Amino acid sequence: MTGIKRQSEKHLILASGRAYPELADEVASLLGVDLVPTRALTYANSEIYVRFEESVRGADAFVIQSHPAPVNEWLMEQLIMIDALKRASAKRITVVSPFYPYGRQDKKHAGREPISARLIADLYKTAGADRLMSIDLHASQIQGFFDGPVDHLIALPVLVDYITAKYPLDNLTVVSPDAGRVRLADAYTDRLGAPLAIIHKRRDPNKANEVAVGEVVGDVRGRVCLLVDDMIDTAGTIAAAAHTLKEHGAAAVIAAATHPILSGPAAERLNAAPFEEVIMTNTLPIPEGVNVPNLTILSVAPLIAEAIHQIFTDGSVTSLFDGASL
Amino acid sequence: MTGIKRQSEKHLILASGRAYPELADEVASLLGVDLVPTRALTYANSEIYVRFEESVRGADAFVIQSHPAPVNEWLMEQLIMIDALKRASAKRITVVSPFYPYGRQDKKHAGREPISARLIADLYKTAGADRLMSIDLHASQIQGFFDGPVDHLIALPVLVDYITAKYPLDNLTVVSPDAGRVRLADAYTDRLGAPLAIIHKRRDPNKANEVAVGEVVGDVRGRVCLLVDDMIDTAGTIAAAAHTLKEHGAAAVIAAATHPILSGPAAERLNAAPFEEVIMTNTLPIPEGVNVPNLTILSVAPLIAEAIHQIFTDGSVTSLFDGASL
Amino acid sequence: MTGIKRQSEKHLILASGRAYPELADEVASLLGVDLVPTRALTYANSEIYVRFEESVRGADAFVIQSHPAPVNEWLMEQLIMIDALKRASAKRITVVSPFYPYGRQDKKHAGREPISARLIADLYKTAGADRLMSIDLHASQIQGFFDGPVDHLIALPVLVDYITAKYPLDNLTVVSPDAGRVRLADAYTDRLGAPLAIIHKRRDPNKANEVAVGEVVGDVRGRVCLLVDDMIDTAGTIAAAAHTLKEHGAAAVIAAATHPILSGPAAERLNAAPFEEVIMTNTLPIPEGVNVPNLTILSVAPLIAEAIHQIFTDGSVTSLFDGASL
Amino acid sequence: MTGIKRQSEKHLILASGRAYPELADEVASLLGVDLVPTRALTYANSEIYVRFEESVRGADAFVIQSHPAPVNEWLMEQLIMIDALKRASAKRITVVSPFYPYGRQDKKHAGREPISARLIADLYKTAGADRLMSIDLHASQIQGFFDGPVDHLIALPVLVDYITAKYPLDNLTVVSPDAGRVRLADAYTDRLGAPLAIIHKRRDPNKANEVAVGEVVGDVRGRVCLLVDDMIDTAGTIAAAAHTLKEHGAAAVIAAATHPILSGPAAERLNAAPFEEVIMTNTLPIPEGVNVPNLTILSVAPLIAEAIHQIFTDGSVTSLFDGASL
Amino acid sequence: MTGIKRQSEKHLILASGRAYPELADEVASLLGVDLVPTRALTYANSEIYVRFEESVRGADAFVIQSHPAPVNEWLMEQLIMIDALKRASAKRITVVSPFYPYGRQDKKHAGREPISARLIADLYKTAGADRLMSIDLHASQIQGFFDGPVDHLIALPVLVDYITAKYPLDNLTVVSPDAGRVRLADAYTDRLGAPLAIIHKRRDPNKANEVAVGEVVGDVRGRVCLLVDDMIDTAGTIAAAAHTLKEHGAAAVIAAATHPILSGPAAERLNAAPFEEVIMTNTLPIPEGVNVPNLTILSVAPLIAEAIHQIFTDGSVTSLFDGASL
Amino acid sequence: MTGIKRQSEKHLILASGRAYPELADEVASLLGVDLVPTRALTYANSEIYVRFEESVRGADAFVIQSHPAPVNEWLMEQLIMIDALKRASAKRITVVSPFYPYGRQDKKHAGREPISARLIADLYKTAGADRLMSIDLHASQIQGFFDGPVDHLIALPVLVDYITAKYPLDNLTVVSPDAGRVRLADAYTDRLGAPLAIIHKRRDPNKANEVAVGEVVGDVRGRVCLLVDDMIDTAGTIAAAAHTLKEHGAAAVIAAATHPILSGPAAERLNAAPFEEVIMTNTLPIPEGVNVPNLTILSVAPLIAEAIHQIFTDGSVTSLFDGASL
Repeated sequence: MTGIKRQSEKHLILASGRAYPELADEVASLLGVDLVPTRALTYANSEIYVRFEESVRGADAFVIQSHPAPVNEWLMEQLIMIDALKRASAKRITVVSPFYPYGRQDKKHAGREPISARLIADLYKTAGADRLMSIDLHASQIQGFFDGPVDHLIALPVLVDYITAKYPLDNLTVVSPDAGRVRLADAYTDRLGAPLAIIHKRRDPNKANEVAVGEVVGDVRGRVCLLVDDMIDTAGTIAAAAHTLKEHGAAAVIAAATHPILSGPAAERLNAAPFEEVIMTNTLPIPEGVNVPNLTILSVAPLIAEAIHQIFTDGSVTSLFDGASL
Repeated sequence: MTGIKRQSEKHLILASGRAYPELADEVASLLGVDLVPTRALTYANSEIYVRFEESVRGADAFVIQSHPAPVNEWLMEQLIMIDALKRASAKRITVVSPFYPYGRQDKKHAGREPISARLIADLYKTAGADRLMSIDLHASQIQGFFDGPVDHLIALPVLVDYITAKYPLDNLTVVSPDAGRVRLADAYTDRLGAPLAIIHKRRDPNKANEVAVGEVVGDVRGRVCLLVDDMIDTAGTIAAAAHTLKEHGAAAVIAAATHPILSGPAAERLNAAPFEEVIMTNTLPIPEGVNVPNLTILSVAPLIAEAIHQIFTDGSVTSLFDGASL
Repeated sequence: MTGIKRQSEKHLILASGRAYPELADEVASLLGVDLVPTRALTYANSEIYVRFEESVRGADAFVIQSHPAPVNEWLMEQLIMIDALKRASAKRITVVSPFYPYGRQDKKHAGREPISARLIADLYKTAGADRLMSIDLHASQIQGFFDGPVDHLIALPVLVDYITAKYPLDNLTVVSPDAGRVRLADAYTDRLGAPLAIIHKRRDPNKANEVAVGEVVGDVRGRVCLLVDDMIDTAGTIAAAAHTLKEHGAAAVIAAATHPILSGPAAERLNAAPFEEVIMTNTLPIPEGVNVPNLTILSVAPLIAEAIHQIFTDGSVTSLFDGASL
Repeated sequence: MTGIKRQSEKHLILASGRAYPELADEVASLLGVDLVPTRALTYANSEIYVRFEESVRGADAFVIQSHPAPVNEWLMEQLIMIDALKRASAKRITVVSPFYPYGRQDKKHAGREPISARLIADLYKTAGADRLMSIDLHASQIQGFFDGPVDHLIALPVLVDYITAKYPLDNLTVVSPDAGRVRLADAYTDRLGAPLAIIHKRRDPNKANEVAVGEVVGDVRGRVCLLVDDMIDTAGTIAAAAHTLKEHGAAAVIAAATHPILSGPAAERLNAAPFEEVIMTNTLPIPEGVNVPNLTILSVAPLIAEAIHQIFTDGSVTSLFDGASL
Repeated sequence: MTGIKRQSEKHLILASGRAYPELADEVASLLGVDLVPTRALTYANSEIYVRFEESVRGADAFVIQSHPAPVNEWLMEQLIMIDALKRASAKRITVVSPFYPYGRQDKKHAGREPISARLIADLYKTAGADRLMSIDLHASQIQGFFDGPVDHLIALPVLVDYITAKYPLDNLTVVSPDAGRVRLADAYTDRLGAPLAIIHKRRDPNKANEVAVGEVVGDVRGRVCLLVDDMIDTAGTIAAAAHTLKEHGAAAVIAAATHPILSGPAAERLNAAPFEEVIMTNTLPIPEGVNVPNLTILSVAPLIAEAIHQIFTDGSVTSLFDGASL
Repeated sequence: MTGIKRQSEKHLILASGRAYPELADEVASLLGVDLVPTRALTYANSEIYVRFEESVRGADAFVIQSHPAPVNEWLMEQLIMIDALKRASAKRITVVSPFYPYGRQDKKHAGREPISARLIADLYKTAGADRLMSIDLHASQIQGFFDGPVDHLIALPVLVDYITAKYPLDNLTVVSPDAGRVRLADAYTDRLGAPLAIIHKRRDPNKANEVAVGEVVGDVRGRVCLLVDDMIDTAGTIAAAAHTLKEHGAAAVIAAATHPILSGPAAERLNAAPFEEVIMTNTLPIPEGVNVPNLTILSVAPLIAEAIHQIFTDGSVTSLFDGASL
């Protein structure tokens, strides 16, 4: 047979955008690699430029980027990184977006709306992504938006382990802050063996434009209430829920959520609300100027690092969180 | 300028598969059209053959098919019809699937599972579909699975209008039969001005394999309970919920759901459970042999016909259900 | 250089649908592998669910499925399996469909017909198939329907070897049962050194709707006639041909065909016709209840197993049947 | 509603490559249009340049090109014309290729061969073609190679009408020059009510490399033999068949074929063979220097013009040849 | 024939992003339409939301957006608008980006760089754009990056007309500020009948890292020098060129460029340089705080409005600037 | 884990078209491989046939073809080779086209023109090419036309090294023969430390159709002028430039260009012009009959061979020409 034969090698590389280098560094350190040396800058006119400073030809590349505000900047930077990797002949490109941007725009609530979460998946694909890794998608169906394999990591065990170690479970009630998060609250009750309650906003259909009142469905009096959500953005819903729970006799209120967006009035609201503790992860950096004294941040870097390791070595990712799904 | 110019016309045609001709006939009659004459047959070896018996060139074609069991047969028939329309130069092809097949397989619950609901969307697209119309998708995110416009019709107003006309609302409580349907129940409470309750299955995490017990979260004693779901398949969950509600003192239990799959033990279970009435629509035919005396079927044909009319005349579809979404 | 390097491995896995597990088992056994543990079931509403029970990440996966009736069920199951493998990060997915479904719908015979054989190829591709393996396609052009490599295996040598070993060739005439199979009959004459005859249906163009009469073109008197076809479905054509040959003085009639569909009246017709022997392969299971005493089934499992082995080890597949093509 | 509304018009234009302007002119004349003014030239280095000299924006464009030698030149010219139309915002582009190039490379006869007929279909699609029109494809399955509507015109009725008008049918036998054209010969027998014969090349499998001998299968003695084929290229097979028929006592031999490629020794062979008449169509121009005195050319321009008219006015194309298919 | 027939209408709508509403308003006013009522907002976490407030079904939609800093925000907003239009069943979507974002990243200058200009074209396509309109692309080849029709408008005649009306041409020399803009300068010389000069940066190859010196190639002494460029970003090159020209005896220096990016130190540099006048267009808004007294802005709104009108009425766009190209 | 595991190998193969076998042989020899045995022929009707005569399954295939006249033949041959490799399961296919065909049709200069250079990129992709290698693209933006990695090799260092070794640099001026090649000339001045001059064609805008006069911009009197271009086709521009330079007092004129198309009157013009030496490379074969005594041809085979080696071994290609770009 003509030609030249060689043993094949595979070569993992980890590239990071500029949104949250600390998380990328922590993942790299856990994997025992250096980040690919990268030159990234924003020109005076706000266009972004990226160049990798060593060969990535044939590499199994993971492109980690977080998506705090300004989310469109970090998204475009990640797309440009993917484009550069594709044109530089990386063999396989895996997007690692711990917080999936635009995840809440996952369906049309009204006519002539976008489905931006699908758009994002298509933009990743178009830029050159072969696969996608993310944590605690706002809706698990977003997995189906991407035309390729998606590794959907679950941070819930990280949060549950912390809670289990710190709080007695026998007096705990898991509370969903609205009707949209009950499925998540249900996953918590499964793991904690706790009962469920819901804050339900009821509107009077005869009185248009009237603000809905939050009713508490389920028993919370004298209970330690664990409010859960996938993210805390402006903290309006969850802070109001905490007040409501206290008004209904809750013994204490703690909150657990994966993604600390914490934008606008979030810090102020969290500090004003009767939370014992707010527990979140580092899928996003805490915005500058946000100071919430009873905020606890748990790291997802070990979860990401282990998932990358499993992917690179053709192992199982779902085994990492004992088959938990959302 | 060279060439020939002509005024353009647009030409709506309605084609129907063999799964549920009565619904297609009703829609056609409301639109004031005949169904395209179609030759469809299943060969001895079970392969399906379809041919349209008049020209469809340039047509704005709507391909209506329901998806009762055997769902794969009806799906393949629909795909073959789309392929024939595409190759016969139809200008635009809109899939009308009142019950979206495989809608419950909309995400990976565990590793190495398919996302069949996305697969179905891709199969439609590949066969040649330009747009998709469906009713009460199991998850609204399925809209984002299809790479094109989706008209997601909402049957909830049809069901709510019937309930409002028949039952007094002041003693009504909307009940979600499990944690996964609370969002739907919430939509009902918005329209009915009713309070919410949930049947919550709690597992003891220390006792593996133990069957979960259904707890009632919220107040149901003395109330008329409206159990809601998007579909009733084997009726296991909803029938158990009805029993539980009665045990907890509900004055009466009625059920409302859009899609009457009613497979396997459904009829038996519904009849054995303490339902005053079970209210559903005709997105699917009632399976032969299913006899549920207190079952009421409301027609979605007017909704479909009006939506097709709006699409053909470039009107607004969302205005049909005053902006309701799920 | 940053990153981690590892030696690359490739990993063959064989997954099977539920249509004909015996063939998959035989292939697996010849390859010396176990089938991937798979959970496949059909829900009460007839939707299919599949899950692979061990990691398939990075695997070179072969998905074997036969397509007897109900062909649409087995096709959908195979598509769902492909989707699951794709989303579980299999590296390459090869569809193995010994009998290509809908192969006879390979062109438009009239306006507004589908080309379902092309549709099937596109459905496989859309689900995630990278390559396709099949045996004795109804038309070799179907290779060109799939957008990727196709390994078109030829079972003719298996059938010819059996015939050569059992029947004297000097008195043999190969007979095509109609004008559409002459190319196949020609391939047999090449290998057997035998003369050719054809059953030709002639219509009188002046008498519409009159049934065509089968003329025998070529000499069959006193000859052992080998009727050949790629498949036997309802056996109408081949059984009528056998009767015609006997009427024209054939000494004996045997039949050879690759795919034993044998639907509807096939068994009755074969048994009523004057066949010495009917020789077929196991690309499809013999339908339950079909009892044809003089039917001989030859196995294609060695052919499939060897082709998979060649593909996995980057060898040559065409060399398996010494360059024979149809 | 905001915006501007206007009545829609559709605008047929006909553009022609430089391969065979006489056919395009005849089609244009029958349609009553002028060809789009086009500047097409071949640069000194053999690259082709095309520009349309009036606006084609919004047009329903038909791009007619024949494919005589040098076929690759005319193909590239056609692809470049399609690209220019696409970028100039033509609304719909229909390729009109009376003789489909590379139609004989429609399957792999051996390993590592291309399927060039599929490649051509993909090149047309990639350049921007929405639909395809061709005449008497070498294999009807080529319809399935193109990802879009194909209008497969049938010239057989044109040829049959001529034969019927000129030759008495009662003494006519249709002869296939080899095993590969029997299906076509069968279509002729259906229309002419004539019997069938075949020239069959038999090889002795024990004597490798021995030239196969042409046997006549069927009765030809004293008959007027009509040899049929879809194309005559170098005329080797059909001329040899004519000699063989004469040797076996044929009263006369005529030939009918759609595509007059007539390359290399074709003229010499046709003139040396005992043909009463050779009847073909003008899907291709007769190559310069080819002089076959008893060659009759029938025009397909009326067929093409009528098909374009039907397509433009959303009529039926298959009705043009009363449903004949190959 | 079954079905319903209607006359077709086409419906132009104009939608605008929030980057530069004044330009969109001017275009709308010239076209005599209102902009589609649009709800667009940026959430606290910086994600963008867009909804169109009336039906766009079947519309021929033009989505105008300018791309000043922050360019990634305005780009994402435009992509989201396109997605919403696509899902709302607009019939055709034309992107109108007067200044094409990332146009300078149009090739790889070094290994492992992106080609962001191609990426942008692909993102537009993926979101749902059918066609693209832009003005004075940084390289005309960017037309070939988009997979569909591109209307490349030329603002040069607008600038030339102004210059011709104001400055005597007999003493004018067109100057390219570096080697990369000579082709543009050449287009100006063609229209103005003026001679050409170039500022050429020469490096001494033996002295690495030494700053290149700008040589003046051509005669500028005593001449009115017109420095031309497609855009002025930080104004470094063009301001240095002006100084150099003055040092070499230029009588006066004026500058003409299409796109006023004017970022960072641009205003300061322009004001410090010896420009008589700087002439630009309003493809971009002048950044807040930029104050350049001798800056003249010419409007491209008439050019855009006329091009949209031609596209909507299937007229010719290139005729608008008498065939000028860059 | 089920299945079979094997070490992965990669296997480089080099296949060549028939346009310029000497270059392919030289590259193969430098790589130390044989070309894949290939059967390629042109049938009498001008269709091309290609078959590879040994297995290419799993191979990393490089398909080298030059594109002299007739360029469409060699392009189609290359596309057919790619198709055959794809269908024969080559793992990765890299097109090697030293002279990119149709590179000058890289943008629309006027309405209704093609962008053939983009079309070519799409044809390669459609046929099955994964990556593309070419030398000195007419515009570097063509890199962005291909949807995948492009290795753009630069022959300029080869030419510069030769010039540096042979000519004294202190009296050298680099001259661009027109405004379109100044960027290339600038790259030469960077490497040679030489000043720049331009031949500028000026038209009098008041005298339509008047032939433009070539002005010399910059100082050339007494200088050795190096005229540079990417290709020499009919040599009209460069020969006229040489005459003009001599008329303006140039001491001597030499020419350097990468691609020797040399079509039509090229040899005659080059020989009649006052060139000391014309220096080109062997990206194309010198056309038969072309005799230019002072023509020097430098080989790019080492550049191509080294680039293929780097690609196969996942090394860096840009490092080969120390980061030079055009």
